[in-house]
Amino acid sequence: MATKKDFLKEVIQHIDIKKHDVVPLVDSMGEMAFSARDLNRAAGIYDKMIKDKECGIILTLAGSLFSAGLKKLVFDLVNNNMVDAIVSTGALMIDQDFFEALGYKHYKGTPFSDDNFLRELHIDRIYDTYIDEDELRVCDETCAKIFNSLEPHPYSSRELLWEFGKYLENNGGPKVDDSVIYAAYKKNVPIFVPAFSDCSAGFGFIIHQTQNPDKHVSIDSAKDFLELTQIKLKSRETGIFMIGGGVPKNFTQDIVVAADILEEDAPMHKYAVQITVADVRDGALSSSTLKEASSWGKVETTFEQMVYSEATVAMPLVAGYAYHKGSWKDRKPREFQKLFTKETVAS
Amino acid sequence: MATKKDFLKEVIQHIDIKKHDVVPLVDSMGEMAFSARDLNRAAGIYDKMIKDKECGIILTLAGSLFSAGLKKLVFDLVNNNMVDAIVSTGALMIDQDFFEALGYKHYKGTPFSDDNFLRELHIDRIYDTYIDEDELRVCDETCAKIFNSLEPHPYSSRELLWEFGKYLENNGGPKVDDSVIYAAYKKNVPIFVPAFSDCSAGFGFIIHQTQNPDKHVSIDSAKDFLELTQIKLKSRETGIFMIGGGVPKNFTQDIVVAADILEEDAPMHKYAVQITVADVRDGALSSSTLKEASSWGKVETTFEQMVYSEATVAMPLVAGYAYHKGSWKDRKPREFQKLFTKETVAS
Amino acid sequence: MATKKDFLKEVIQHIDIKKHDVVPLVDSMGEMAFSARDLNRAAGIYDKMIKDKECGIILTLAGSLFSAGLKKLVFDLVNNNMVDAIVSTGALMIDQDFFEALGYKHYKGTPFSDDNFLRELHIDRIYDTYIDEDELRVCDETCAKIFNSLEPHPYSSRELLWEFGKYLENNGGPKVDDSVIYAAYKKNVPIFVPAFSDCSAGFGFIIHQTQNPDKHVSIDSAKDFLELTQIKLKSRETGIFMIGGGVPKNFTQDIVVAADILEEDAPMHKYAVQITVADVRDGALSSSTLKEASSWGKVETTFEQMVYSEATVAMPLVAGYAYHKGSWKDRKPREFQKLFTKETVAS
Amino acid sequence: MATKKDFLKEVIQHIDIKKHDVVPLVDSMGEMAFSARDLNRAAGIYDKMIKDKECGIILTLAGSLFSAGLKKLVFDLVNNNMVDAIVSTGALMIDQDFFEALGYKHYKGTPFSDDNFLRELHIDRIYDTYIDEDELRVCDETCAKIFNSLEPHPYSSRELLWEFGKYLENNGGPKVDDSVIYAAYKKNVPIFVPAFSDCSAGFGFIIHQTQNPDKHVSIDSAKDFLELTQIKLKSRETGIFMIGGGVPKNFTQDIVVAADILEEDAPMHKYAVQITVADVRDGALSSSTLKEASSWGKVETTFEQMVYSEATVAMPLVAGYAYHKGSWKDRKPREFQKLFTKETVAS
Repeated sequence: MATKKDFLKEVIQHIDIKKHDVVPLVDSMGEMAFSARDLNRAAGIYDKMIKDKECGIILTLAGSLFSAGLKKLVFDLVNNNMVDAIVSTGALMIDQDFFEALGYKHYKGTPFSDDNFLRELHIDRIYDTYIDEDELRVCDETCAKIFNSLEPHPYSSRELLWEFGKYLENNGGPKVDDSVIYAAYKKNVPIFVPAFSDCSAGFGFIIHQTQNPDKHVSIDSAKDFLELTQIKLKSRETGIFMIGGGVPKNFTQDIVVAADILEEDAPMHKYAVQITVADVRDGALSSSTLKEASSWGKVETTFEQMVYSEATVAMPLVAGYAYHKGSWKDRKPREFQKLFTKETVAS
Repeated sequence: MATKKDFLKEVIQHIDIKKHDVVPLVDSMGEMAFSARDLNRAAGIYDKMIKDKECGIILTLAGSLFSAGLKKLVFDLVNNNMVDAIVSTGALMIDQDFFEALGYKHYKGTPFSDDNFLRELHIDRIYDTYIDEDELRVCDETCAKIFNSLEPHPYSSRELLWEFGKYLENNGGPKVDDSVIYAAYKKNVPIFVPAFSDCSAGFGFIIHQTQNPDKHVSIDSAKDFLELTQIKLKSRETGIFMIGGGVPKNFTQDIVVAADILEEDAPMHKYAVQITVADVRDGALSSSTLKEASSWGKVETTFEQMVYSEATVAMPLVAGYAYHKGSWKDRKPREFQKLFTKETVAS
Repeated sequence: MATKKDFLKEVIQHIDIKKHDVVPLVDSMGEMAFSARDLNRAAGIYDKMIKDKECGIILTLAGSLFSAGLKKLVFDLVNNNMVDAIVSTGALMIDQDFFEALGYKHYKGTPFSDDNFLRELHIDRIYDTYIDEDELRVCDETCAKIFNSLEPHPYSSRELLWEFGKYLENNGGPKVDDSVIYAAYKKNVPIFVPAFSDCSAGFGFIIHQTQNPDKHVSIDSAKDFLELTQIKLKSRETGIFMIGGGVPKNFTQDIVVAADILEEDAPMHKYAVQITVADVRDGALSSSTLKEASSWGKVETTFEQMVYSEATVAMPLVAGYAYHKGSWKDRKPREFQKLFTKETVAS
Repeated sequence: MATKKDFLKEVIQHIDIKKHDVVPLVDSMGEMAFSARDLNRAAGIYDKMIKDKECGIILTLAGSLFSAGLKKLVFDLVNNNMVDAIVSTGALMIDQDFFEALGYKHYKGTPFSDDNFLRELHIDRIYDTYIDEDELRVCDETCAKIFNSLEPHPYSSRELLWEFGKYLENNGGPKVDDSVIYAAYKKNVPIFVPAFSDCSAGFGFIIHQTQNPDKHVSIDSAKDFLELTQIKLKSRETGIFMIGGGVPKNFTQDIVVAADILEEDAPMHKYAVQITVADVRDGALSSSTLKEASSWGKVETTFEQMVYSEATVAMPLVAGYAYHKGSWKDRKPREFQKLFTKETVAS
């Protein structure tokens, strides 16, 4: 009879873009057609964002990217000043990044599994990847522990993610050397998770708020929106690098309109790149073109490019290209986290 | 020179499933293959949920459904006790339902538009649909007005959506006869929007919190999660009818785990149906199969069915089938809103 | 131990569009957005083709449509003068239509099968549909028998399909009342299969040509192209109703260019409708837009519409709409088969 | 006013896999999840085919690959004994490879074109690529010229493709150094185009057969099927590397069944790899899984892998991986063309 150990054997390893100089390959793709040429153009636009001294760069993340081996890639972007703010789903940051920072792993699996049998073994499946459900429960409880330790009032997710970084700092550091939350904490790169209850942290909140029915920590995603808009107003010029769609894409596009509501004439996002397989024909936001976003006054159409590819293939090429072009070497960190220092970082 | 009026001429009209008895058509589809047979099975499972006296039904909505003519359909589900709770994106409830309740409309457009020109005219585009940006700004401001009128403390989105219903009640009722927010208010069907700042309400919050920096309304999506979990614990048996994926899908699947954390042995969702075009091969949650959800202990595999179709085509067939089967006639409203009455509804 | 019989129990039944008046439903879809509105427009264009007295209608078929229950639908189009020529894949005509005319059936299955076990049982799977491999072998052999009976020279596929119709006529008629090949034979609707060796007929040819190495029947798809072009030149105005893409789509679009090569100034296809889920971003012909075809001078852009839907759901709505609008009642059969009478039909 | 020259300026350039050692990158992808890991596995299986001394390798090609910059890649596979037979669409071989061998080019364009204007300028568009329609007409006429020069009888497409190679040889060689047809001619790699009338050659046939109504060249795709089956019977072990689906995929999978009809117990394809974006849920052959093919007795399930990616991105990685692994260096050419020498090559 197979046991949990039989399934959780081969650890997912994160790709290291620093080891693969894809510049000549991606340059060649620029002379081809279809997705290859689109990918090349997207990589070039991302490099342009990095070169543009005036431009703040916002990375949006959706989809199960870190369990799929793209965590170190984002870590490298943060660490090398290639991104100034992150807007993400909760699962990526908590169930995957924080989870690995606690010392747990993701494992190679297969989509052709017997899910009822996996459930009996307490193994969760993400397409072709396995997770130890019992380890995830520890992650949930660690979230509850962090919330229990905080002053009971409404927080933006940015504040809470910063607390997660601090928790790692105060508990011997992350157990891995590529934690995105921890790197962002050290580099003052704010992380926003607009739907923060929709992940392991949500389970932490369930425990925390049930145990503390009257006075407890709450998450104010309106504050998230206000804070990200303040970053837009501070930076003026912005570029967005989007992986997948969902709330992170919509939320980040919307801050242009929000900025326009607070101060007339906020500029649109000057650069916009998205990697996605979503089909435009369902009319949903995740697949909506960047040209469509321009009708809303959110994205300029000069430097925008969508790339039709699953992220694990395209993102190492796009991000690797920008890394090896090296424009980040002359780029100063924007440290947008410091905009909010009085509230949280000084504590 | 074309003006805004030239573009905003043909109003989108919502389909009325009551007028189309699709039962024989959908029954025929059950004898075919591919999506037709899947659609038939999904319709049958939805009808089973309605027949099952023990089962609470949660509808999850993502994608630009109401601007596309599916609003009255959801209104009819609410009004005829075919759904007991809704988990939705913010855009659907505020930018589209509340927006139309204020008397505004969506208009037929085309995906082959010059988006820069549309922007100059203050017209927003959703694929093949146009919206008057100036009317949306009024919607934003109305949200701010509602928030300004409330006691300044953290709210669940459910509480706020209820306040939107009350606002309509107190201001002469909605200007249309198919408002989902208003019907849900009258029928005590709670509506959850876990990423509530990610829509027109977010702009309202930006205004409200900027005007009231010290004391203001905030949204606590952790409370959302707790409340929806309480509904699960109350109902025990549940069925989910999902249109699109995104946060609403994930959030609603997760309450089984949340319930399990609060009380051992919460049952999985007994029935699950999803209409989506998302491709499973990107590994993201929106496209993840309901079988995969079963590895997480979220969904039972006996009565689950995904339908590969854009929602405007499949949803009238699935919902229309269940409507004309008539099992809802014997179904009592669950009025889950009353679970939380002491907090808000009594006010 | 499961046997073949346990798997081949539930017969696929073909939808009867005559029984479902979908006109009000499809009309309602025209007031919505996204695929529903596209579907309505496509249905309207198909009806326009039927009303246009000058227009010859070519139906192109790709994908496993008849095994999925769409055979009687095409039969009804042929029988009611709603289509004047068919361009198809070989599998549809031989492995599926002729196969059922011989008395065999397709069966409901599931995509979650153990394919190695199915192979041992001689069961072939098409996604969620099962076929008896041994019955298919009889179909292969029947093809060989027909080829053995013919004068050994090159034939167009149109000529051969006509011979299949004649074979059914001379052998007691088809064993079903909805054979497309037989209806086309009786109604003088030519059927073209440009890649005719790529199906059960190919196996028949393998047997026939191996047994008759020196003198044998061969298939000349160049002749197909010439003949279909002659139909275009005869009809002048044409409309195309395309299900899926592939060779049938390309081949049929190309006859405009071929006609232009033979006689200057052949008109483009005046009407064009395609139902497909293929994604335009791979640059392939199957997904290429009808606007792109217009750059090639193949399709006019005034009355063209693509519908993003799997065929089993959309085709009954589009074809059913045109059937119940009834414009076909005033339409005379074009009997394009008679253009080639001297060669084959008289025999 | 823009002229044709303004549009046909930037030439598509073919990627040179020899210049990009992607082995470390693709190896890293093998430790990730989703498409990256699938791509790694596919590359490994292709390398295994090359290493397997008993295995004949068949490459199937569908989609507009050569106009997109993948021609030199296939040229390199042929030239380095990494493929023993090719099954292709006609457009790839004639409209794209032979077209470029005549000295013409493909040009970078954009999907956001005014197709009516392009048509006026005699520019054909393939998604984001432009072609000079007048040059294509020269290609059509050259085909006619070749057919006019041949003995009038039925040919397999393989024989005709070989004649195209000979034509290039006898007319000063191709005007480019990466012609696939010419390399295959020199290396005795047979090329099959089962739907050969469905391309520029079809226009050549229209001209040829119209000018020579009584005695003319015809194409016998049944002979194609028989010949490819003979290769299977000769090689016994086979591996297939499929780009896209369509007729080339189906045709090549079917030869196992054909071989089984001619001689009992022909082995299934031992290795099978497919790169495609087609969605399995439409039930069509192009998207059908290799596991499904195994129910038909066509493909073994031990070494099969589908990769969900547009070809311009994935094919350089898969083929480049196999190239730089270098297993081809020890591989002898199979020269399957010589199986048929008596008929054509000796002439």
